[in-house]
Amino acid sequence: MDEILELTAGVVRTSRTMNDGRTIRYYDTAGQARTAKDQRPEEDQPGIGELRLDPLVNEWVAMAAHRQGRIFLPPKELCPLCPTTGELLTEIPESDFEVVVFDNRSPSLRPPAGDFALPDLVGADTDEGVAAGKCEVICFTADHGGSFKVLSRQRVRTLLEAWRDRTAELSALPYIAHIAPFENRGEEIGVTLAHPHGQIYAYSYLPPRVAKMLEVARAHHQKTGHVLFDDVVARELRDQVRIIARNEHWIAYTPYASRYPFEIHVTPLVPVADLTELAPAACDSFPAIAIEVMQRLDGVFGIDMAYIAAWHQAPVREGRDLLRLHWQITSVRRAPGKLKYLAGSESAMGAFIMDMKPEQSAQQLKDVKI
Amino acid sequence: MDEILELTAGVVRTSRTMNDGRTIRYYDTAGQARTAKDQRPEEDQPGIGELRLDPLVNEWVAMAAHRQGRIFLPPKELCPLCPTTGELLTEIPESDFEVVVFDNRSPSLRPPAGDFALPDLVGADTDEGVAAGKCEVICFTADHGGSFKVLSRQRVRTLLEAWRDRTAELSALPYIAHIAPFENRGEEIGVTLAHPHGQIYAYSYLPPRVAKMLEVARAHHQKTGHVLFDDVVARELRDQVRIIARNEHWIAYTPYASRYPFEIHVTPLVPVADLTELAPAACDSFPAIAIEVMQRLDGVFGIDMAYIAAWHQAPVREGRDLLRLHWQITSVRRAPGKLKYLAGSESAMGAFIMDMKPEQSAQQLKDVKI
Repeated sequence: MDEILELTAGVVRTSRTMNDGRTIRYYDTAGQARTAKDQRPEEDQPGIGELRLDPLVNEWVAMAAHRQGRIFLPPKELCPLCPTTGELLTEIPESDFEVVVFDNRSPSLRPPAGDFALPDLVGADTDEGVAAGKCEVICFTADHGGSFKVLSRQRVRTLLEAWRDRTAELSALPYIAHIAPFENRGEEIGVTLAHPHGQIYAYSYLPPRVAKMLEVARAHHQKTGHVLFDDVVARELRDQVRIIARNEHWIAYTPYASRYPFEIHVTPLVPVADLTELAPAACDSFPAIAIEVMQRLDGVFGIDMAYIAAWHQAPVREGRDLLRLHWQITSVRRAPGKLKYLAGSESAMGAFIMDMKPEQSAQQLKDVKI
Repeated sequence: MDEILELTAGVVRTSRTMNDGRTIRYYDTAGQARTAKDQRPEEDQPGIGELRLDPLVNEWVAMAAHRQGRIFLPPKELCPLCPTTGELLTEIPESDFEVVVFDNRSPSLRPPAGDFALPDLVGADTDEGVAAGKCEVICFTADHGGSFKVLSRQRVRTLLEAWRDRTAELSALPYIAHIAPFENRGEEIGVTLAHPHGQIYAYSYLPPRVAKMLEVARAHHQKTGHVLFDDVVARELRDQVRIIARNEHWIAYTPYASRYPFEIHVTPLVPVADLTELAPAACDSFPAIAIEVMQRLDGVFGIDMAYIAAWHQAPVREGRDLLRLHWQITSVRRAPGKLKYLAGSESAMGAFIMDMKPEQSAQQLKDVKI
């Protein structure tokens, strides 16, 4: 049965069930009725994967062995993220949409069956666990050839509302420890569907980078009484030179120790733990800076840049007062014909080498006429 | 002035100085005299780069801003790693070579000038340092179209001797904390020179992954009294199923918690801290298993696999009894037309998702007829 929910900013969410039991959620601003049926045949869902502990670094690796055969760069005529039209039966039964979120058809992480406690899934004294969690796909334009930077401000505001809604709802699930909405763009970084879209990974364990950030933030707080990220932002505001955009509620900068040719952090000036805690005024002023940043990024070389744009949030159940919301955009594009790759030093040793300083990329980003 | 040194296994090293002051070292087995002069014009060396601390994870990032313009996939006629012939003046003045090591022309890390102490370079209370260290290039065949897997056993033994020599000599430099010989192969992972070659990165700081491995190994030792890596190898020997090759002195396996479609660890059965500690018998039996592993890897799909093959060694100045030598080969190739990319989950969150289990890749590697 449909469930209709009024969110803030005039956004209405309609939740429906797909033929194979997955949920699809429409986020609309114009009072649309969402009634189109999923006409595709039912499909069996593969079982849940496993977690294995990499003992050498004490980090979980998720094994999702069924994903190997998933769809790979289909042509536009077969795009599963376009609206359903005529004979093309896609993931989205409606003939148009604004923002839509649905459960991933080939999820790396799945809801666990039956009763459980989080420690049973990823106990301290075992090197195996269940790859519990939830993976969702988020489409923010029906235009197959579109991109984030050409979205209207209203659409980005709706997208933000969808991210906020998903964060709130996923946080309430007992098996979720951390929530990361992100967008991968560009075949160069392995996107398997060209239609612009994002994903939401909700983990039942702390992702290794988040665990490290929390450990470092905790040590900093014990030593100084400060929240580390607030000190980092204060330093960027003091240094000025790496700030590429700002408005009343947000700043965007290329961090002092960037790891990628173009790395941009977009941060609210009033720090919050996660998307759900953003004040209405901060929400309303996000679209302008988000679109500006994406326009600057594509403007540097006049080409569509491959990027990963990921929301870092505080974990759901710990470190709420130690980690801060920020949006991290990283691009491996270092020149029109050249990418930065993570090879021996970065991949095997974890030691990043930058070919250019963030002050230089900041200048290139600031120089873009928009 | 030339310096000639007899190493073990009948290998003789001849060290010479290039026109711009860099050193080139020939490792030979047939008594060759190395007298060819570097006929190229002199070149100014750019200055040393800087280290910046990424505060969010407390990890150093090296900034080598001068590398942006380095040579990129030159055609064979301009290959700087071929021997010098006729008008092609390359990095190697001789008209042929077995194994040769020379200082990288565009090094990410450089020897620091003047007196210094290691703590001055990367102190505990600063977020900036000097990108001190040493980067070397190692060529192991004059054949532009060759590869590791077609090397003779004797050549691999000479290569091993060169790695051992470099590790010994670099360990003696007061500003070196860690030494990582590695080979990147394949344009897919960003190799900018097609001629087969490896690199040696000698860091003045512990690379983040090594620091993490040391921290985890230390905790394991305090808790169990065991060396973590020895327990890991014991588990692989017990499980059997992921072992893909072995001989009297070495085993090769796809680790229990592999992070890549094909990940292979090659490990001596008598554990040692680094290459210099390998016993003569272990050295002599390395070529057979190394060549077999590379043949199996390329045999899975019948194509040249992109890979990173990196030696993990104990750091030079700490944790000598806690970390163990092993050779880690990782390939992002998951199918003939498909690569695994590190996108949102891996790159932004550090959470690796595997599309196949290492038991499956082990079987594919074992099934290769060699």
